[in-house]
Amino acid sequence: MTSTPPAASASAPAAQPSAAAAALPADHPGVVELFALLAYGEVAAFYRLTEEARMAPNLRGRINMASMAAAEMNHYEVLRDELERRGVDVVPAMTRYASALENYHRLTTPSTWLEALVKTYVGDALAADFYLEIADAMPGAVADVVRSVLSETGHSQFVVAEVRSAVTASDRQRHRLALWSRRLLGEAITQAQYVMADHDELVDLVMSAGGLSQITEFFDRLQQTHSTRMQELGLA
Amino acid sequence: MTSTPPAASASAPAAQPSAAAAALPADHPGVVELFALLAYGEVAAFYRLTEEARMAPNLRGRINMASMAAAEMNHYEVLRDELERRGVDVVPAMTRYASALENYHRLTTPSTWLEALVKTYVGDALAADFYLEIADAMPGAVADVVRSVLSETGHSQFVVAEVRSAVTASDRQRHRLALWSRRLLGEAITQAQYVMADHDELVDLVMSAGGLSQITEFFDRLQQTHSTRMQELGLA
Repeated sequence: MTSTPPAASASAPAAQPSAAAAALPADHPGVVELFALLAYGEVAAFYRLTEEARMAPNLRGRINMASMAAAEMNHYEVLRDELERRGVDVVPAMTRYASALENYHRLTTPSTWLEALVKTYVGDALAADFYLEIADAMPGAVADVVRSVLSETGHSQFVVAEVRSAVTASDRQRHRLALWSRRLLGEAITQAQYVMADHDELVDLVMSAGGLSQITEFFDRLQQTHSTRMQELGLA
Repeated sequence: MTSTPPAASASAPAAQPSAAAAALPADHPGVVELFALLAYGEVAAFYRLTEEARMAPNLRGRINMASMAAAEMNHYEVLRDELERRGVDVVPAMTRYASALENYHRLTTPSTWLEALVKTYVGDALAADFYLEIADAMPGAVADVVRSVLSETGHSQFVVAEVRSAVTASDRQRHRLALWSRRLLGEAITQAQYVMADHDELVDLVMSAGGLSQITEFFDRLQQTHSTRMQELGLA
């Protein structure tokens, strides 16, 4: 997941670490699962970005996509090291999350360069909102790892300029891309639910930490930060 | 270019900085050309590695290729920053080297996963030998940049184990891959000559530095380090 600023922290106060979080052990089995899920997310995003870079109209666009992809692999390596430190082989651990993440990418394959840009920006920011919300409820050392692999790298800023300029020039593009980003939101939520349904340790982690106990508020915040990003892209 | 150790420095003494090198100005116009050539090399290698990763038999192989590709982009960013510091926009500068590098990759497209692995290891090591030989004759600050972007990252060690095991099990594979690596050597030399023929500043840089003045010895060393690597891969 890249690299977009967690809009949540700017536009709405994130959940504070709960009393449950302080009590949550750093070796909770869900921690390994969370890292494995994030690790597969990084590798899947790497290959998705390099694939979508084929649609770039020029070398500069291809290079921007490659830089973002490289940042994903740097984050993957942090997660792999954390898993190794816990005696876990990253490859079999992350394979359990392959189907949900591959499904998300398969169901949201962009058909134009602008769709690819919007997906990069909005899709990854949604993932970051989701994980950072969970991180807020985790023990400090675990939260630090999650935050570092979702940290701002500044790579995606080129997306805003390019999308804004395209939708300013064409109402048709604006409507198309607004629908597209709504679809990204829907698929992300659907796949997140599948992941939770299939992985009890993860649900237990999130629930014991109290991170998503106020689930309605959480989805409200997600919608709100999504709207903020739509405005940034000129799609609101 | 990755990441393989410069075998030259282990197996044969590299050229010492000449008196000419000390006199060579760090703002020689060839320096920008050398950085631009290396920068395109990194981006081309990034996309080549991610393309060839499709042939990987499993997730572990795909991840290894992605890690090597990410290292190329990290090196690209060093070169881009060095060019920017010199007031040069990297994209137009590097575009001048697109055809030679794309031709090299087009003419050496692997048809199997083992060919892809051998190309990664041998092809990139050849490029490193070539650039490091030039670097030895450059002013210190320029040489440091060249060495840092060709530095060992340890990523390609997995190649040795996988190729050795395949060629130990099959004489047919050994012969096929030995021919393949000879072809890589030939194409690399051909494209290096095209690059030199088309870019006078680069030739002037190399010649004023005295780096390739003993051109016969240089090609002897290249052959010799190539043979060393053939032995490492079990292809000799």
